[in-house]
Amino acid sequence: MENDDVVFIGNKPVMNYVLAVVTQFSGGANNVTIKARGRAISRAVDVAEVVRNRFLDDVELKEILISTEKVTSDRGESNVSAMEITIGK
Amino acid sequence: MENDDVVFIGNKPVMNYVLAVVTQFSGGANNVTIKARGRAISRAVDVAEVVRNRFLDDVELKEILISTEKVTSDRGESNVSAMEITIGK
Repeated sequence: MENDDVVFIGNKPVMNYVLAVVTQFSGGANNVTIKARGRAISRAVDVAEVVRNRFLDDVELKEILISTEKVTSDRGESNVSAMEITIGK
Repeated sequence: MENDDVVFIGNKPVMNYVLAVVTQFSGGANNVTIKARGRAISRAVDVAEVVRNRFLDDVELKEILISTEKVTSDRGESNVSAMEITIGK
């Protein structure tokens, strides 16, 4: 997959990530994958929706995946949900 | 779509909704749709993953949809992201 980019969603405001996604499309990306884990998943959906509805009308949803990832911390191993939303032209 | 059920995700613990989904499958549902809006979206993904990985091995992801809904409150109209995850046998 050439010209594909990834934006990881953290705890910053939604518009920061919207700008990152729009910038990648402006730079020639055909698809952008928005990835998030745990509570950031809600924000990932916000980012995809704001990009599609308010900035890039020609971009559509390509694929939505959910999964479970193992995370190791001081308190041992735990499971966290993860999500990937791919949008593209 | 006969025998299809819906579970709306709110602010209760994940296991409450997991139990609701498992109960619907036990009662004969072929598919269950897990719906959430806003911050509850992360919890909806948790519910789907816990049901699939820990309770019902024969259930798979059928469809994941995201959308934007308008919500009217005292402070006027605002947009909120929404998600539907359908799992089934």
